Amino acid sequence: MTDDGCVFCSIVRGRTDASVVHEDESVLAFMDLRPVNPGHLLVVPKAHASGLEDLQPDVGVQVWKVAHRLGRAMRRSGLRCEGVNLLLADGEAAFQEVFHVHLHVIPRFAGDPFRIRSDWRVHQREQLDVSAAAVRSGLAALGGAPQA
Amino acid sequence: MTDDGCVFCSIVRGRTDASVVHEDESVLAFMDLRPVNPGHLLVVPKAHASGLEDLQPDVGVQVWKVAHRLGRAMRRSGLRCEGVNLLLADGEAAFQEVFHVHLHVIPRFAGDPFRIRSDWRVHQREQLDVSAAAVRSGLAALGGAPQA
Ligand SMILES: [Zn+2]
Ligand SMILES: [Zn+2]
Repeated sequence: MTDDGCVFCSIVRGRTDASVVHEDESVLAFMDLRPVNPGHLLVVPKAHASGLEDLQPDVGVQVWKVAHRLGRAMRRSGLRCEGVNLLLADGEAAFQEVFHVHLHVIPRFAGDPFRIRSDWRVHQREQLDVSAAAVRSGLAALGGAPQA
Repeated sequence: MTDDGCVFCSIVRGRTDASVVHEDESVLAFMDLRPVNPGHLLVVPKAHASGLEDLQPDVGVQVWKVAHRLGRAMRRSGLRCEGVNLLLADGEAAFQEVFHVHLHVIPRFAGDPFRIRSDWRVHQREQLDVSAAAVRSGLAALGGAPQA
């Protein structure tokens, strides 16, 4: 359930310091060491999972529930919070740095240092339909149906 | 349950075109018109909710479940996908542009145009503890306990 070289597993076991805001049977939430803004925190499963692929669906649901609640709590915290981002990075290409799944809860305010850049051009419907068909084939490859 | 001026409500009602990849009782997933990369999609609740504050927790859970599954499907889609970001923007300060909750599922690959910038300095434990206490007070203000 834990991975010896993993800093988040070490935090879960109480061997590495963290500023904890929530703990339950399957999930821990604590402050990010390098906050985008004060209050930036991470929600992690207690059982080691490196990414979306090996994250148990029911544990993922609890990660989400806690993040949803913490996002709402952030606006009632007295910290500067005019908005909230939830962000998960799965894989190095997606900027994941610690390979133990974590969902960022980031308080935001106008003029803060967080920036997102991309190419935001509108794509044509034909291209979008091709992508949609590809994703549906990926769903089919997963098999079964999403849990209701 | 719908909002007349809302483009995502219009998609849910079938009045505006979309390239749909998943539909169930409470959630719809379709391609983003301005994809970061081909395959970039949005998971939305069918019932209008502007943000985390008015999103029903059980509907939020279904949004998450579908996004988790779609993130895994993306890697099996044949689209270029070496990683996946899940991103939710709650509020204008967090870069929300359509005020109907949506969770982005973004396929990523090395060298793609998506960039995140911030101030990544490590903060001191004392500062982090102050932030953690503030968030816990926000949780207390919400009342009750997170659902298990
Ligand atoms: Zn770990
Ligand atoms: Zn709407």
